Amino acid sequence: MKEPVHFELLQESQDSMARRGRVHTPHGTIETPVFMPVGTQATVKTLSPEEVAQTGAGILLSNTYHLHLRPGEDIIKEAGGLHRFMNWPGAILTDSGGFQVFSLSSLRKISEEGVAFRSHISGEPLFMSPEDSIAVQNALGSDIMMAFDECPPYPADRDYVEQSLLRTTRWAKRCLDAHQRKDEQALFGIIQGGMEFDLRKLAASQLVEMDFPGYAVGGLSVGEPKPLMYDVLEFTTPLLPKHKPRYLMGVGSPDDLFEGVLRGVDMFDCVLPTRIARNGTVFTEKGKRVVRNAAFARDFAPLDESCDCYTCKNYSRAYIRHLLKADETFGIRLTSYHNVYFLVKLMERIRNAIEQGTLRAFRASFFAKYGYEQAND
Amino acid sequence: MKEPVHFELLQESQDSMARRGRVHTPHGTIETPVFMPVGTQATVKTLSPEEVAQTGAGILLSNTYHLHLRPGEDIIKEAGGLHRFMNWPGAILTDSGGFQVFSLSSLRKISEEGVAFRSHISGEPLFMSPEDSIAVQNALGSDIMMAFDECPPYPADRDYVEQSLLRTTRWAKRCLDAHQRKDEQALFGIIQGGMEFDLRKLAASQLVEMDFPGYAVGGLSVGEPKPLMYDVLEFTTPLLPKHKPRYLMGVGSPDDLFEGVLRGVDMFDCVLPTRIARNGTVFTEKGKRVVRNAAFARDFAPLDESCDCYTCKNYSRAYIRHLLKADETFGIRLTSYHNVYFLVKLMERIRNAIEQGTLRAFRASFFAKYGYEQAND
Repeated sequence: MKEPVHFELLQESQDSMARRGRVHTPHGTIETPVFMPVGTQATVKTLSPEEVAQTGAGILLSNTYHLHLRPGEDIIKEAGGLHRFMNWPGAILTDSGGFQVFSLSSLRKISEEGVAFRSHISGEPLFMSPEDSIAVQNALGSDIMMAFDECPPYPADRDYVEQSLLRTTRWAKRCLDAHQRKDEQALFGIIQGGMEFDLRKLAASQLVEMDFPGYAVGGLSVGEPKPLMYDVLEFTTPLLPKHKPRYLMGVGSPDDLFEGVLRGVDMFDCVLPTRIARNGTVFTEKGKRVVRNAAFARDFAPLDESCDCYTCKNYSRAYIRHLLKADETFGIRLTSYHNVYFLVKLMERIRNAIEQGTLRAFRASFFAKYGYEQAND
Repeated sequence: MKEPVHFELLQESQDSMARRGRVHTPHGTIETPVFMPVGTQATVKTLSPEEVAQTGAGILLSNTYHLHLRPGEDIIKEAGGLHRFMNWPGAILTDSGGFQVFSLSSLRKISEEGVAFRSHISGEPLFMSPEDSIAVQNALGSDIMMAFDECPPYPADRDYVEQSLLRTTRWAKRCLDAHQRKDEQALFGIIQGGMEFDLRKLAASQLVEMDFPGYAVGGLSVGEPKPLMYDVLEFTTPLLPKHKPRYLMGVGSPDDLFEGVLRGVDMFDCVLPTRIARNGTVFTEKGKRVVRNAAFARDFAPLDESCDCYTCKNYSRAYIRHLLKADETFGIRLTSYHNVYFLVKLMERIRNAIEQGTLRAFRASFFAKYGYEQAND
């Protein structure tokens, strides 16, 4: 059987683990490294699918947990699947719901069978097993599904992390067995193991053994210091097969994108661009700016003078600040569009730099203007 | 001096006061009768200017009171005027602020000089005279400005209505005198007079005397029964010059649009399409539907099966209901777009019917499906 999603390795860097590649999916080919905007509830907040495509994004992430709770995967399946439901012709990656079950719901209780939890919307008691997660994702019809895992918090007891990763491995096997649409949807495994190098190695060896078509590094960017995250990542990616895509989950600040790419990551996702946009914060070549601030009331320059996006070509900081202050959602559309565009475009520049062997130099010139942020943002 | 805005009367109906015309403005020519979407705070809520234009709208209304309070007309003037500030290349009509001063602000006190009131945002004490209103509108740079008037409530004491309209006439004269950009912006007069026919006649004769380039009928749709509104309108429009545009303020339900056109009105504006869109209510050929309702959870038809708008071509009731339930603003974008499109398109069909002499027949066939609504909506 031919895998529905496969990775084409185009070029490896000489001076880092960075690589240029392509992820071929049933809904288009994605140039990597790539940033995937997040459409949690079957919409990238405030943006139309056409606008998401205009930013240059070809793949987005949607959340299994949220869609399971509302509207329910049966409705989306009846609509013809998630692509059709939300009118997005590009590729879709769905997470497993595991992370949200642990981070959003209350009164969760984990067992070998799965996780009992309460809906963060209705309070209703619910249960999700690996089989349930795969059944939901099969109903959604995403191009890339994720195995149901547990993401331990940071810091966590080493014994707990070990037991958790062993269970995540057993769950991964159950996910593979439960997968009903192997010719249409790819299932990626998730490497856990917290900040313990040997546990990362154990997790990787067990999951690589199962021969998934792609692998995520999970359990990072959960509160640990950035240098530690980079170290764990640098240790983990070489344990993964060279000819399969590597996905670093939940990471999307400009510094993390550079550091991830330099450590061999191909795919990233993060709510950051749309989340900060709602607070009136935007990326610019000179770092983040809070356009909501009074300083911009009479500033008729675009959000980012070096940007050629729809927002920057047509609107001023003063206008966008006015909209945000007046609670007009068009303001959040404009900042969201710009922020997604900024990260998608940054990845395009990173890909070009990889091709030209100048990624480290590009990183230096980028942060000379942007400023290097060590804070988690 | 050539008026910057003038009306071209193309055709008069045989069996009603309905007429086809064109309003020529510095920012485009508007086919009439026309519906103008409302962009209160320099944005038609949730929509981009491109989307507003895609609905077919060529002129929108913006609110002087709101823009005066926030961001302030000085900022908009500094941006190059309202068209440029909000990136809208079409025509703009600004109201005078009078209606909002009376309906939104608190502690207002009216005198011959103007109106003292408190900002509904900050509570700050403010004052607006006819000269102030015109100065604000001159700074905004709208194509059509409205004279500063008082709109009495319904019901109102006849003596009060009379004193009010006489003051509105004196204010209209002051507005004309204060107008600083007569070669770029047209100033329309507003006929008040409540539900008193003789006072309407008095107001019309005084304002027509002043030779404004266009006239609005104000003080209707303020709580009176619809038959009374239609009677007052039918009495008032023949008092206005045939070769100048007539604008019925704040009216936009489908039944009122038909009845207004049949009584010789050329221009309408209303927040109705965007306001009901935010509550999940949409116009369809079969009347209004509350798409937020549970009945639409598994309904994969478009909002209106007879509609060819962006929303109806690409999205289902089930998807839009999901977005509205999940508080995703893209849902309100989709309902807002559809509702504005519906009214703009309805006016296009009304114009065609006038041209073909079939307006009454079109009204009958439209409401045979839509249902006739007597309620104020």
